[in-house]
Amino acid sequence: MIAVDAMGGDHAPEQVVLGALLAAKAGVWVVLFGSKDRIFFLLNQYDSSWQKYNILISNTNQQIGMGEDPVKSFKKKMDSSLVQAVQSVKQEKCKAVVSAGNSGALMVASVFILGCQKGIERPAIIGTLYTGKKEILILDLGANVNCRPSNLVQFAHMADSYARRILGIKRPKVSILSNGHEEGKGSILVKKTFDILKEESNLNFIGNIEPYGIFDNRTDIVVTDGFSGNILLKTLESVIKTFNIKNYTIANHGALLIGINGCVVVVHGNSDSQVIKNAILFAHQNLINKEIFYGICEKSFASVAT
Amino acid sequence: MIAVDAMGGDHAPEQVVLGALLAAKAGVWVVLFGSKDRIFFLLNQYDSSWQKYNILISNTNQQIGMGEDPVKSFKKKMDSSLVQAVQSVKQEKCKAVVSAGNSGALMVASVFILGCQKGIERPAIIGTLYTGKKEILILDLGANVNCRPSNLVQFAHMADSYARRILGIKRPKVSILSNGHEEGKGSILVKKTFDILKEESNLNFIGNIEPYGIFDNRTDIVVTDGFSGNILLKTLESVIKTFNIKNYTIANHGALLIGINGCVVVVHGNSDSQVIKNAILFAHQNLINKEIFYGICEKSFASVAT
Repeated sequence: MIAVDAMGGDHAPEQVVLGALLAAKAGVWVVLFGSKDRIFFLLNQYDSSWQKYNILISNTNQQIGMGEDPVKSFKKKMDSSLVQAVQSVKQEKCKAVVSAGNSGALMVASVFILGCQKGIERPAIIGTLYTGKKEILILDLGANVNCRPSNLVQFAHMADSYARRILGIKRPKVSILSNGHEEGKGSILVKKTFDILKEESNLNFIGNIEPYGIFDNRTDIVVTDGFSGNILLKTLESVIKTFNIKNYTIANHGALLIGINGCVVVVHGNSDSQVIKNAILFAHQNLINKEIFYGICEKSFASVAT
Repeated sequence: MIAVDAMGGDHAPEQVVLGALLAAKAGVWVVLFGSKDRIFFLLNQYDSSWQKYNILISNTNQQIGMGEDPVKSFKKKMDSSLVQAVQSVKQEKCKAVVSAGNSGALMVASVFILGCQKGIERPAIIGTLYTGKKEILILDLGANVNCRPSNLVQFAHMADSYARRILGIKRPKVSILSNGHEEGKGSILVKKTFDILKEESNLNFIGNIEPYGIFDNRTDIVVTDGFSGNILLKTLESVIKTFNIKNYTIANHGALLIGINGCVVVVHGNSDSQVIKNAILFAHQNLINKEIFYGICEKSFASVAT
């Protein structure tokens, strides 16, 4: 059962409800959190026989806006679709949550309600970039706009675990996004993280990487703060969209909020029903991996250098 | 007369010397700073009759590597091609300098030797992105990886002056690069800059912009710190190169280091001779604008909020 934040996103609830319906038609069980009347109306509009699929509606009375302060909105809006959807995972009613809403609020709710995994201070949004040749993991794509070196080091460890356990890469190459590939290039944050990864971690750290290096497939994992990662992601997507480039995908199914005790899938605010559907299927797929991933990783994360 | 740092860049001196030769053939007077023997050898190799063009060679005995610390290398290597090329502008032997070398060192040399314009604490690399519909100014593209709000505010004022005086835009739209277009989104740096631009400046400030907004031509000027700007630039260039996209150019002629008392053109380290040639022609063109730009701007920069 996947919890869906029906009221979150630029095109919510319309596109979210439609996406959930499509996922239900593909066989996934979904619970839509939001205004019961509105969701009911939309489902009837889309398909009068929607009740033969596995869709439940859980009424909520509040809504967190895209521009709202994450911490404040979380505290004030406990009966929002976003918070209640996350709550349902804690209560083990649902096994995963999908939201195209305020990603900062989703992170806050996930941390407060579900908690971070051992050894992890902040979760990160991890995305997969398919360059045409290979899959490259990038994190953080936007959960943490202000980061400390210890956050980035933990992101590296989480992605390393993910690459090894889920993607089957034996010794994943880890790099930091920077404005030059040479050692010594980068912001204060990059330089400090570089030193820790080089000297104190047992990861296969290959140093700084520029965007060129990502597209040249020189790495398996790119670590960055959520601000720069978000700029990279959105620049890529803008160009891909503008020029209608095929064979190049990033996070077209949402991205995992890694480091949380539970499966939380973050979807772009501007997503349409097709992306929402894919995100729900992706969350469902992640559940299959969940035992492998979360089970083993909890041990390895506990030893992460901070 | 344009000073060219012949030893700076990933493909220096070969591609730089060839680029300078091409620019000289196009009618620009150039002075190549670097190893006299090496430059002489290359010029003879490229064109045995090179001496009929206006090319001078100024011998220097040191070289600043791409990965060297900007401040240290500047202080230790006063007889480097980069420092001597900048020095020649101060001495009024040359009217502009072009370098594909260590951009941090170029900035440091420019600030120490030529000085910043009144009211400007740090210069910025300003580039022009042509989206197919219009030209958009972006700064900083990499001169300042760690910025304060006052730096970004000054970048906004410099770009505003440039857009009005040089591009002829009456009331340029100014925005800050952020991870969301809503007010309240962004890093600590973005939020603080947002407040100053909104409340204390007389600029036509339109708020946060995401990469999508740039490609949708919603702005004339994008202000950002040099780290994020560099990631945006290189992500764009990587995709453009990978997919061989036409009709989309950014900084293919080098970019102006704006805010300096003098014309300093920064070129990508990995540039080939064609880009070097274009950068020299661009510097030459900027000189024509120099009187208009620097003359008027010195007054307006002096009133920049800091």
